[in-house]
Amino acid sequence: MFVLGVDPGLTRCGYGCVADEHGREIAVAAGVITTDAHLPLPERLAELRGELATLVHELEPAVVVVERVFFQTNARTAMSVGQASGIALVSAAEAGCAVAEYSANEVKLAVTGYGAATKEQVQRMVAELLRLPELPRPPDVADALALALCHLASSRASRLATSGGRGA
Amino acid sequence: MFVLGVDPGLTRCGYGCVADEHGREIAVAAGVITTDAHLPLPERLAELRGELATLVHELEPAVVVVERVFFQTNARTAMSVGQASGIALVSAAEAGCAVAEYSANEVKLAVTGYGAATKEQVQRMVAELLRLPELPRPPDVADALALALCHLASSRASRLATSGGRGA
Repeated sequence: MFVLGVDPGLTRCGYGCVADEHGREIAVAAGVITTDAHLPLPERLAELRGELATLVHELEPAVVVVERVFFQTNARTAMSVGQASGIALVSAAEAGCAVAEYSANEVKLAVTGYGAATKEQVQRMVAELLRLPELPRPPDVADALALALCHLASSRASRLATSGGRGA
Repeated sequence: MFVLGVDPGLTRCGYGCVADEHGREIAVAAGVITTDAHLPLPERLAELRGELATLVHELEPAVVVVERVFFQTNARTAMSVGQASGIALVSAAEAGCAVAEYSANEVKLAVTGYGAATKEQVQRMVAELLRLPELPRPPDVADALALALCHLASSRASRLATSGGRGA
C-alpha cells in the first residue's frame, strides 16, 4: 500500500510516498513541486494542481495525507498555504484516494516522539526510519515523508487497538 | 462580455454573473453554492470545484473575479475560505478565463463609494445598479455581484485613463 504525504505550499510543496511492505516502510518517491513566483496566482495554483494530479495518477496511493494547516504568523504565507492545501485535498478526492489530515505537531510527535521537534530532528528521524542514505532535503520533503509515516503509524495503532479489543 | 464574481466560501460560496451590454450592466445569473457540512473536507472541496467548473463551463465568462482573502478573526473560517478561494482560482484558470482579484474593501468602495460599507448597503447598491426587483440574498450573492460590478468599473476606469492619455 502506498501512502502519499503532501506538505502544501505554493512556493514549495513537498511530497513523499512511502510503501508499507508487510510492516517495513520504504520510501518510494519524494521531491518538491515548485511554481514560478513570477506567474499570477491562479496560474501557479493550476500548475500545482497539474503536478499533484500527475503524481497521484502515477503513484496511485491508497491514501493521501495532507498537513492540516492552521494560522501562522505570516498572513500572506498562511493564505497561500491554505489555497495550496485546498488544491491538494481536491486532487486527492477527485482521484478517489482516501484522505487523512494531521497537524504538524501530531506528525512531529509520531515521528520523533516530541511535538515541538525541530526541522532537522524530523529530517534525521525520517532518514533513520526509512534507512535513507542522506537527510531528505529541503525540509518540505522530510515533512511530507513524515506525514506518510505518521499515517502508517496511526493506522497500525488503530489496528492493534481493534485486534486487542477483540482478543480481550 | 460576461464577468463572473465569486465570493469564496465552503459553507456558502456566492456567485454572480454580470453582462456588460454596451455600458449597461445586466445580472445574468446569481446564487449560492453550498456544500454538505457533514461531508469530509476533501469531498466538500471537490463538490465546490465541480459546481464552479460547471458554472464556468455554462456561463463562459471572459473574466472570473474572486475576492482576495485576508486573515480574519476566526482562524477556522479563514483557512476554509483560503481553501475555497484556491479552488475558485484554479477552476477559472483551468477554464482559460482571465482572473481578477479585489479585496472586500475595494469592492465596497467601488460599489457604494465607502470602503467600510455594511452588508446591507452593498445589497442595496447592487440591487440599484443592476435594477433588481429585490435585494440579492444572502449577502454572499450581493458580494459576488458586487465583485463583478467592481471589475467592470475598474476596467472602464482603465480604458478611460488610457484613451485620455492618448488624447492629451
